Amino acid sequence: MVAKKETQDETKEKQEMQEELEELEATETEGIDIPEVSEVEELTSKFSEMEDKFLRARAEIANMSNRNKNEREQLIRYRSQDLGKKLLPAIDNLERALATEATDEQAASLKKGVEMVLESLTVALKEEGITEIKAEGETFDPNLHQAVQTVAADDDHKAETIVNVLQKGYQLHDRVLRPAMVIVAQ
Amino acid sequence: MVAKKETQDETKEKQEMQEELEELEATETEGIDIPEVSEVEELTSKFSEMEDKFLRARAEIANMSNRNKNEREQLIRYRSQDLGKKLLPAIDNLERALATEATDEQAASLKKGVEMVLESLTVALKEEGITEIKAEGETFDPNLHQAVQTVAADDDHKAETIVNVLQKGYQLHDRVLRPAMVIVAQ
Repeated sequence: MVAKKETQDETKEKQEMQEELEELEATETEGIDIPEVSEVEELTSKFSEMEDKFLRARAEIANMSNRNKNEREQLIRYRSQDLGKKLLPAIDNLERALATEATDEQAASLKKGVEMVLESLTVALKEEGITEIKAEGETFDPNLHQAVQTVAADDDHKAETIVNVLQKGYQLHDRVLRPAMVIVAQ
Repeated sequence: MVAKKETQDETKEKQEMQEELEELEATETEGIDIPEVSEVEELTSKFSEMEDKFLRARAEIANMSNRNKNEREQLIRYRSQDLGKKLLPAIDNLERALATEATDEQAASLKKGVEMVLESLTVALKEEGITEIKAEGETFDPNLHQAVQTVAADDDHKAETIVNVLQKGYQLHDRVLRPAMVIVAQ
């Protein structure tokens, strides 16, 4: 009976251990381990995605910064384009006025004043980067000059050179505000 | 013997199960569970940090975009400030020339030309937002006017009003390029 009892106890103990073991294995499989691996995977993937978004945002910041720097430089470099362009007819008219005869005392005095004004305008434009396009005697360049008339080339005037300037051209740095109107030898 | 054998087998089985159970419990504590919880925590914290960096980068992009838009608008709005300012003495001189007597035919013709130039310059400046500051008859405003002389106020000239303008002032939109030089009643 004692042995039988022991065996019964042992059987019971064994059964309990079996249950505990099953429970543990079950817990391990369903509750903690597998979901944690997938949570780690999910988090790793979410992190990578966010890191990617951050790196792209940082690249965009660098691009914007460069783009804006260039844009600002261009705006400053060519800021006087519009006003400069509008001043050209005034300069033409002042030059035309100076080309007229002024033998009278009043007219001579006026001309002197106009000369000074023209000089100060030219200086102001030059300081903003607006200069006259070289034309007379130069080789014709369709980017800078507009041919309005041609003459036959001769010993003094080689073909493709500018013989005469009918209206001055102006450029703002590398940009042509108005091409020079010229007569070209051909 | 059979019973004894069974009991021995059972004991052996029980021992094996006990070992397996201990092994499992040991594994659970030392190998898988605790490190995984800390990995999840670490990943969650890394993700939060990265998300924070991304959100700050995105805010910086929005700020940069606004800042650059404003800067561009300001650059365009006031682009003619420097050239405009440099043109003011030329305009003064043209106005001075027009104020001189021109009874001679040549001088009268020159003046007509100068008048046209002055008109075209004024129009060009106005198109860029540069206008004359109102002065004569206005109430003196230290932001717009510079008093160079005072006269006693009388029935025709109330105190603090501008009696005479010695040099015209100009403004570019809301910015004063040059205040008007005035005589004020006091």
